[in-house]
Amino acid sequence: MTAVVALGGNALMRPGQRGTAAEQRANLREACEALRPLLAEDELVITHGNGPQVGNELLRHERAADEAPPLPLYLAVAQTQAEIGALIESELAPVAGRPVACLLTHVVVDEDDPAFAEPTKPVGPFYDEARAHELERERGWRIVHDSGRGWRRVVPSPLPLEVVELESIRSLLGGGAIVVACGGGGIPVARRDGRLAGLDAVIDKDRASSLLARELDADRLVILTEVPAVYRDFGTDSQQELRELGVEEAGALVPELAAGSMRPKIEAAIEFVRSTGHEALITSPAALDAALEGEGGTLITA
Amino acid sequence: MTAVVALGGNALMRPGQRGTAAEQRANLREACEALRPLLAEDELVITHGNGPQVGNELLRHERAADEAPPLPLYLAVAQTQAEIGALIESELAPVAGRPVACLLTHVVVDEDDPAFAEPTKPVGPFYDEARAHELERERGWRIVHDSGRGWRRVVPSPLPLEVVELESIRSLLGGGAIVVACGGGGIPVARRDGRLAGLDAVIDKDRASSLLARELDADRLVILTEVPAVYRDFGTDSQQELRELGVEEAGALVPELAAGSMRPKIEAAIEFVRSTGHEALITSPAALDAALEGEGGTLITA
Repeated sequence: MTAVVALGGNALMRPGQRGTAAEQRANLREACEALRPLLAEDELVITHGNGPQVGNELLRHERAADEAPPLPLYLAVAQTQAEIGALIESELAPVAGRPVACLLTHVVVDEDDPAFAEPTKPVGPFYDEARAHELERERGWRIVHDSGRGWRRVVPSPLPLEVVELESIRSLLGGGAIVVACGGGGIPVARRDGRLAGLDAVIDKDRASSLLARELDADRLVILTEVPAVYRDFGTDSQQELRELGVEEAGALVPELAAGSMRPKIEAAIEFVRSTGHEALITSPAALDAALEGEGGTLITA
Repeated sequence: MTAVVALGGNALMRPGQRGTAAEQRANLREACEALRPLLAEDELVITHGNGPQVGNELLRHERAADEAPPLPLYLAVAQTQAEIGALIESELAPVAGRPVACLLTHVVVDEDDPAFAEPTKPVGPFYDEARAHELERERGWRIVHDSGRGWRRVVPSPLPLEVVELESIRSLLGGGAIVVACGGGGIPVARRDGRLAGLDAVIDKDRASSLLARELDADRLVILTEVPAVYRDFGTDSQQELRELGVEEAGALVPELAAGSMRPKIEAAIEFVRSTGHEALITSPAALDAALEGEGGTLITA
């Protein structure tokens, strides 16, 4: 069996936390415990988000900009792969019972992806108006006004097309390691004349996880998030937990779901199920054990 | 044939440079071109330093400390493995002709290493006296006065004992990838109750490279630095290039060499040659091609 498990932001940072190493390790200790039922999988890849971490990193680049050159966004994404990968490795290794390997992962996108014409994903700190215009001029950034909170950079979130290090992930899995890969959706790159060119963009981590699971022909894609399942009419009195969805039903549900939240997860699951015929599971770390026994979570099936 | 090649700081950053991504890529483009004669090796691992990069990163952590929690030193080392690894991957892939894989690497040290009792390695920015004392109190740092330039944190530089991800490096090599590993000497960790605990320390990258080369039983350790060879009486009128040194001769030379510069390279080479009976080469990227033909560089032999 091969499984790809995507860790949601909550596995790393909780509301009200700032993202210290100690906080992230404590959260990951819980998340890694919850992964126990999957650790017996023959081949296991763990992916993860990086939203708050890359936000903190971009803030660091900005605040030290007069003294240390700010790195481009794609390298900030790389930095968070290592930060979070090291934290995952330290907490997963004791429960894994086998090697854990964190691989720097690049994901190819299309520079003609329409996302590049219309950047929408806010990243990094807020700026005042003067600094915002300065950054637009100096660095060619697209900066938008976020009412009440100041000015903020927006970047494209293009579709992931290819995991560059796929063969290396296979080698590591073949060697018996649990692999941490595609952190933060992967480092976005374009192929230009045989070279990988880093791009100022971010890739949705659930979409990247789905791509990786398809490329590996995984038997299972597990997307872990804050809630134990997908709900119809979420947050209302009539909210209804959805335990199993055929891929067509799931597709019909998409327009009802919150754009930045459950929707990309369902879309990622649908893509995986359509492409492989295998099942995708959406649940929380706490509900994972029961969900694997068919007693919780939302299963999306062919 | 298996080779471990350690890239010196010069391959990444030159005197007067600040460490922008563009500068580092341009430098690496040259260094990767110079590696061509080694790219035909069956198994090739590339290691690298991270001195200026980790300095920049610690500065970023410090300058944003009021807004984003500073990460511990071991995670800053991890961050530089990803930053530099991504840059190496982008410049090496076009010349490599096969996959390049950058693996997050932890290196075990002994918490009873005498280095912990006497931290000597300066890292990060300079502080004024008030801030220095504050950091000593708040974070338990050891901070020393550096005459004329202010106050600076010092950390231990313990001996590397074990590359945690050795089996994963073997898997990647077995799969045909060129592996980038042990960046910045590796993320220093201790084993505590089966867990990896990150430590506020740095590991000499040449020593870590030598350890990895020994653990892989590599056929060759190549240490690339700024000068084409090792010299006796370096920088004097009578400086003499040393082309081949037996391991005993090399050992006798150690006390003559600059402590922070050529000495750890020779020591790393000696350890490798003593342990494996194979040869170590110390040269510059520009002289590598000739050195591999026996027409330059310093070869240390059993």
